[in-house]
Amino acid sequence: MSKPFRVAVAGLGTVGAGVVKILEDNKDVITKRAGRPVEVVGIMARDKTKDRGIDVSKYKWSETLEEFLNNDVDCVAEMIGGSEGIAKDCVEGALSSGKHVVTANKALLAHHGAALSALAETGKVQINFEAAVGGGIPIIKSLREGLAANKIKSVIDILNGTCNYILTEMQQTGRDFADVLKEAQEKGYAEADPTFDVDGIDTAHKIALLTSIAFGVKPDIDHMEINGIRNITAEDLVHAEELGYKIKLFGICKNINGKLVKSVEPCLVPLGSTISAVDGVLNAVNIEGDFVGTSLSVGFGAGQNATASAVVADIIDLARGNEIPTFGVPANDLVDADWGDVGDSVSRFYVRLVVVDKPGVLAEISAIMRDNNVSMEAVLQRGEDDENVPVSVVITSHLVKQSNIVKALDLIAQKQNLSESPCLMRIESV
Amino acid sequence: MSKPFRVAVAGLGTVGAGVVKILEDNKDVITKRAGRPVEVVGIMARDKTKDRGIDVSKYKWSETLEEFLNNDVDCVAEMIGGSEGIAKDCVEGALSSGKHVVTANKALLAHHGAALSALAETGKVQINFEAAVGGGIPIIKSLREGLAANKIKSVIDILNGTCNYILTEMQQTGRDFADVLKEAQEKGYAEADPTFDVDGIDTAHKIALLTSIAFGVKPDIDHMEINGIRNITAEDLVHAEELGYKIKLFGICKNINGKLVKSVEPCLVPLGSTISAVDGVLNAVNIEGDFVGTSLSVGFGAGQNATASAVVADIIDLARGNEIPTFGVPANDLVDADWGDVGDSVSRFYVRLVVVDKPGVLAEISAIMRDNNVSMEAVLQRGEDDENVPVSVVITSHLVKQSNIVKALDLIAQKQNLSESPCLMRIESV
Repeated sequence: MSKPFRVAVAGLGTVGAGVVKILEDNKDVITKRAGRPVEVVGIMARDKTKDRGIDVSKYKWSETLEEFLNNDVDCVAEMIGGSEGIAKDCVEGALSSGKHVVTANKALLAHHGAALSALAETGKVQINFEAAVGGGIPIIKSLREGLAANKIKSVIDILNGTCNYILTEMQQTGRDFADVLKEAQEKGYAEADPTFDVDGIDTAHKIALLTSIAFGVKPDIDHMEINGIRNITAEDLVHAEELGYKIKLFGICKNINGKLVKSVEPCLVPLGSTISAVDGVLNAVNIEGDFVGTSLSVGFGAGQNATASAVVADIIDLARGNEIPTFGVPANDLVDADWGDVGDSVSRFYVRLVVVDKPGVLAEISAIMRDNNVSMEAVLQRGEDDENVPVSVVITSHLVKQSNIVKALDLIAQKQNLSESPCLMRIESV
Repeated sequence: MSKPFRVAVAGLGTVGAGVVKILEDNKDVITKRAGRPVEVVGIMARDKTKDRGIDVSKYKWSETLEEFLNNDVDCVAEMIGGSEGIAKDCVEGALSSGKHVVTANKALLAHHGAALSALAETGKVQINFEAAVGGGIPIIKSLREGLAANKIKSVIDILNGTCNYILTEMQQTGRDFADVLKEAQEKGYAEADPTFDVDGIDTAHKIALLTSIAFGVKPDIDHMEINGIRNITAEDLVHAEELGYKIKLFGICKNINGKLVKSVEPCLVPLGSTISAVDGVLNAVNIEGDFVGTSLSVGFGAGQNATASAVVADIIDLARGNEIPTFGVPANDLVDADWGDVGDSVSRFYVRLVVVDKPGVLAEISAIMRDNNVSMEAVLQRGEDDENVPVSVVITSHLVKQSNIVKALDLIAQKQNLSESPCLMRIESV
């Protein structure tokens, strides 16, 4: 038996404690698979007395980062979180001192991934981050390795369990966003401050990382339209279903004629498609490659066990001696992407307008759509028959350039007395 | 740049030609990802003049296996197929002479996997076989690496595109098995001799390989009930749908109280579940681990491009220098499984009986079910109102030990004048 692979764990929140637990509980299979024992040596966390369901007295406890980084280990598991501060110091310190890093920290890598990848290569060590995106789905491994023969065409994913849970509840119960969010917070599925999740920032970090591996570009969170799910109404979900769709928050990156177009946005997907059946807190990742076709993976995106499972898989990989560049190609080969404009992308769209129902409204809307080359597929008008009461007009379009339909909606908003901003969502046939 | 990674390809059928094509077409990204050029050096196939869509004159052509194995290469890609004969000789010869092997040959590994894994270890080389199971789904990698932190509880998979296509067509069009099979043969989705596919043998090979990795046991195709889809009628699909289910051919292995129970069998799955939406030629693999929960992957299982994509990913892994034991643990650690009896497994079931409709039939069936501890959930009786005309009685059970319901059906068959054998299918809530 080879000598043990030694790990130090920074941060004993939900995930960090889960990592220690798996390494203890599944020691037998992990030793066989890694070809050597994997041992936790040191730990750093804030409160030594807190009950985490594990016995921390077995491990060397560090109070300071300096002391922690002095542990004689092969690998540091950074489970602190956040794109700056101690998490960043910890990762940089570990890499600089020749220790591999395993992390679940999507924000850190989305902001500083290219530099950290270069730092790892200088130190001849690895950064593994399977747990940063869809913990229960080995998607980083699939993209870096399993699909490595392919030029990737698109990545379309459900990456935030909180949003998917809220949308599923809204669809199944007919309740409003605010109501379902409140319940999700009470159940612990959503944070007290839900901004990061429901406004799409978490998804943006994750799609930035997948984009980097899929297309060989530096991680980037700037060139991206980010729209969350706050403005989706119970009514939108009802209309979507009537038209044969569900609504999902997608992180998307597509190669469109050599330019990458990246966004986070709620989209309609056809009922009956596999991804439309991915409900609740589940995540899903759909990759299209030039040879593999489409490959879809579904699993738990968060939670102690699924996330810790991914962290420990990364540790086993390192214990086995396997080395893959952080983003699938050497740091020097990562290029600045040629970003395209999401307005140039061609899709089908869903539109909901709240208009005052008087004669000629539909004719005017139709004329503006036509004048901007928007061909309409279906039109629903729902609401009271009373004149002067606002009603919803729901439209689906045929394929159209996004900037055209945006322009049409701007003109409609100017001419019509809209009681709220138009709702525009892409229809994706994943 | 490191020196090239040299590959020799044995067999230029659909997949072999696809491998050469990808290595040519995607040379740029593959070189970056592998960290070195990947070059085809030698080729062995039967007919040098056949048009395969690739220019074979660029590569050294071998007429004999002996000459082929003399190529000075790092890796042999065995794309010949078959569990014996030249494919086996080729793999053994390559491993014995210190060459890595990449193969899509499920039959070879299902029959000889343990011995070949040991041979590879002796020669300090690797066997990679991602393409052998669900080509477009990187499931071997997921199981050997991505989920390596987990004790696996179950593996439940759709692994044969031909069967899934036939079942989907039967369900969507109401046509019979024989009719849809004939069409599938004409379209090239099914072989002239469909036995291997529709009788479940192909699925059996694949589930044997997944079982080996998932549970650390020697590949084994003997301890397995294998039932294909020949006896499923259009009527079964209609009844299943009425009751809220689809029918899928599953390869299954579960750890039930420390014993492994493995089978290939058509099962009912709830409509609305993600796996129920996996239609047509797609494959799906559902893994349940003790920490990761369930993880489902969907993709193309066969076809030139998806399969060749998997082969090339395996080659890139080897070019990167990554090493994983064939079945996830060293060959010496693979154990003979403790196989359980599928009759002891507890499930819900679907039953269809064709009985002559006379008073008291249902009462007698119900009594026999009750006497054998089978609790019925739903009963449908469909057909003419004429007495003495055979009608179908469809029953779903609550959870019951399989041997109990089998015994009940035997007794019913003895007492009733059944015009055909009872149809029994498991209901799986994947």
